[in-house]
Amino acid sequence: MKNIIIASTSTIHGSTYLEYLLETLETFFANAKTILFIPYARPGGISHDAYTAIAQKGLSKINKTVKSIHEFENPIEAIEQAEGIFVGGGNTFVLTYQLYKNNLITPIQNAVKSGTPYLGTSAGSNICGLTIKTTNDMPIVYPPSFNALALVPFNINPHYLDPDPTSKHMGETRETRINEFHHYNTPPVIGLREGSWLHVNESSIILNGPLTARIFEHNKTPYEVNPGTQLNHLN
Amino acid sequence: MKNIIIASTSTIHGSTYLEYLLETLETFFANAKTILFIPYARPGGISHDAYTAIAQKGLSKINKTVKSIHEFENPIEAIEQAEGIFVGGGNTFVLTYQLYKNNLITPIQNAVKSGTPYLGTSAGSNICGLTIKTTNDMPIVYPPSFNALALVPFNINPHYLDPDPTSKHMGETRETRINEFHHYNTPPVIGLREGSWLHVNESSIILNGPLTARIFEHNKTPYEVNPGTQLNHLN
Repeated sequence: MKNIIIASTSTIHGSTYLEYLLETLETFFANAKTILFIPYARPGGISHDAYTAIAQKGLSKINKTVKSIHEFENPIEAIEQAEGIFVGGGNTFVLTYQLYKNNLITPIQNAVKSGTPYLGTSAGSNICGLTIKTTNDMPIVYPPSFNALALVPFNINPHYLDPDPTSKHMGETRETRINEFHHYNTPPVIGLREGSWLHVNESSIILNGPLTARIFEHNKTPYEVNPGTQLNHLN
Repeated sequence: MKNIIIASTSTIHGSTYLEYLLETLETFFANAKTILFIPYARPGGISHDAYTAIAQKGLSKINKTVKSIHEFENPIEAIEQAEGIFVGGGNTFVLTYQLYKNNLITPIQNAVKSGTPYLGTSAGSNICGLTIKTTNDMPIVYPPSFNALALVPFNINPHYLDPDPTSKHMGETRETRINEFHHYNTPPVIGLREGSWLHVNESSIILNGPLTARIFEHNKTPYEVNPGTQLNHLN
């Protein structure tokens, strides 16, 4: 019954919040009038209220009401009763910290298993993987674990960025970082470029959007896959 | 008695390993014939032996012998007896994990307090700060704490990178990330560009190299400081 959208980003360059996904979301959230928003990742440190207003503005274009988890007295009940869940981007460490603090890991896993549609963007997508060990974010808070929701049997690298051959900067490229990950961990990593998303539907995992994605498997040369590719064999 | 060089990077574009620092290091390590190398950060996941060979090649130009901590049976004794310490770059999480695993945090702090010169580059500089919460690295292993050596009373962001006004990438800029850090933490952060280093000499902390550094203080607008600036008031 799993039904998940794992999007690299909420916003692509030159367009408004969630705009490129709205047509897809209209179908995806067809049976949900109200979407439970999880604002914990706080992009730029903004308040939960301010972030919720952004999500509401984006989703009002497809006539959804957004209610944020911080407005509920009991966040676990909020998850259990949600018609649809949207976890927005921001800082993955802050998001993970808050999910553990509010004991929401298992409730979200159970809700998704029982069919509640889950939309994640950026940090909200990162936590769909096995761990947050392939986040690009700064570790500004210390979460009790790097283990994430494990809704898919691999890791996500959102905002995947190709190496810039003209750069004189000596910091690591994204590919170098993911290769380093594989010195200590074996799960595959999907590098999702901005504009790409995975649609998980029960046991099917399909790459969507106009771009290829880069797949990093342990002890293999990284390779590209085209939109429409079935990725459920990766684990 | 503290004597520390905190360098943004080991290597600047178009030059060899440590080359831009060698003149400085000749004076800095004047009383050390043998340098104790700490290869734990394993850049690109290379072996301790391979990394030690790179450090040896760099420092042989100023006639230093490099011995790596992984060659000692007792790493704590290695620290206590070192004439000089060099902690190389790589992954800050891997480095921090290994320092805790080998119980080296306190021995290194004590050695530095008693006057052993300490050179850090990149990850080896990051850990000189209060925490590793302003690293750029991917969290590929889970360390028991984000607390670092606290040899200086602020945090370091090595490889500091200015925002690229032409970029269409929607991932956070470095400045955005450090500002997010300050939503959850109060210590100042020094953004050290490649080619810059801090020289800590007892209570003096001076910016060196050809470039300005960017200083981020809690609840203040970030600002630039020139080479030669005394930074010991930051805390």
